Amino acid sequence: MAGEHSRVGKMLVFGAGNVAYSMVPALQAVSGDRGVEVYSRSERSAAALGAAYGVEWHSGSWMPGGAYTVCVVAVPDGAVRASVERLEGDGRLVIHMSGSVPVMPLARGMSGVMYPLQSFAKGERSDLREVPLFVEGQDGASHDAIFALASKISCKVRTLSSAGRERLHLGGVVVNNFVYRLLALVQALGKGTGAIEVTDYEALLKTTMQRGLSADGGSRQTGPARRMDVETIGRQLRLVQKEFPRLLGPYVAMTESILSASKDEELSKWR
Amino acid sequence: MAGEHSRVGKMLVFGAGNVAYSMVPALQAVSGDRGVEVYSRSERSAAALGAAYGVEWHSGSWMPGGAYTVCVVAVPDGAVRASVERLEGDGRLVIHMSGSVPVMPLARGMSGVMYPLQSFAKGERSDLREVPLFVEGQDGASHDAIFALASKISCKVRTLSSAGRERLHLGGVVVNNFVYRLLALVQALGKGTGAIEVTDYEALLKTTMQRGLSADGGSRQTGPARRMDVETIGRQLRLVQKEFPRLLGPYVAMTESILSASKDEELSKWR
Repeated sequence: MAGEHSRVGKMLVFGAGNVAYSMVPALQAVSGDRGVEVYSRSERSAAALGAAYGVEWHSGSWMPGGAYTVCVVAVPDGAVRASVERLEGDGRLVIHMSGSVPVMPLARGMSGVMYPLQSFAKGERSDLREVPLFVEGQDGASHDAIFALASKISCKVRTLSSAGRERLHLGGVVVNNFVYRLLALVQALGKGTGAIEVTDYEALLKTTMQRGLSADGGSRQTGPARRMDVETIGRQLRLVQKEFPRLLGPYVAMTESILSASKDEELSKWR
Repeated sequence: MAGEHSRVGKMLVFGAGNVAYSMVPALQAVSGDRGVEVYSRSERSAAALGAAYGVEWHSGSWMPGGAYTVCVVAVPDGAVRASVERLEGDGRLVIHMSGSVPVMPLARGMSGVMYPLQSFAKGERSDLREVPLFVEGQDGASHDAIFALASKISCKVRTLSSAGRERLHLGGVVVNNFVYRLLALVQALGKGTGAIEVTDYEALLKTTMQRGLSADGGSRQTGPARRMDVETIGRQLRLVQKEFPRLLGPYVAMTESILSASKDEELSKWR
């Protein structure tokens, strides 16, 4: 068995950002006695990541030799293409982790994508078993190899095309970036009163999350816009304009969106 | 002690909607040997609520007598004023539960507000101990009586003026209605692919929630708009316009909002 393990070779995590910091321990946990090593262009970043997990690190113009059979590319979107091309090698599996970069077929070796639907941060430990991993390969063999690796990391692994991943990534921007922005605005709104903490919204947000993530198909939309309660909407618009203009754009757009869906729902009752 | 209890009299829940369904068991739990009863204009609704919790119910033109010393008004915003006025009585405490209706001083008796920051639904049991209750009274005595009652129901009770409650309610619309709308849009977006479930976003949404509810003051905003990554924004805008126009308004407004905050944050580094 030792022979088989050494034949599959070492794993390299290419990059030293937030995603790399999550991937190194995840790969260590599944690597058996094959080694996990890291690379970053910057020596300082590579050394810090290497020290954080006690793994060998490389930097600068270093290139992986034949011993590295799996390379996981965890770099910013704009650097993915060049990194994947640089890592191309005979019999090597190159996996990138970007939601918005299509699969990049390589003439030599295997290539594909393993996209985690999560927002990582160095200080936060994320339980990767609960993070869905979306897999695509340049061909069947690449897909199957990535799928097998992903299944050792997470219990939620799915196959998804580049086109599907584009939608998934767009959904991720909405769920993560847009919802965060709304919460940041609510936090600022409460500060003016001195009596409202953003944590006061926790129970309400949990309810929203339970309803929003239930796949029962029925709409659980509530609120003034769903009720077409123009009096409350008008009063809130005046409050926003006068005291909190930063919320105006989001308030108008989200209210319009709910009103439009409500109109469709009401009209459908008459058809 | 029995004498003291009977002196404080019965509690009446006025209304038979989602809030009333949550308040009846909460009041039963704190009422000791004083009784909780319910009223709804509609006989059918009153009977259903009464049967749900085994309490006496009233309907139609019935008016509470002197035995009812606490009345909790849980009716739609538009009906609050008339209900509070109807319930006015000597020595009686009338409490309404609306986020957007100011405190209504009564010449006889006491009056005020106990606003729960939660979205209730008949089928869902909500743990009121974790739901913040915001209290206001027409005077000190009213405030103190409502505050004492609220403290028996929830461990998060705060005093808040009508003006503060208006902001709180606006924040509730953002946290509940707007976030729900975004999740509904993401659910519809995923349906087109056949491979994405809305529950796939659970881990990401939990992370968003943790960051958004932390009161550390620092911005944890991420994503293409925060990075001012116009290439990704442009690509997503084309995808939205072509395949998912319903998301266009929210996408543009939320992206603009993040871009504007990012610009302010970047500029502040140069000042």
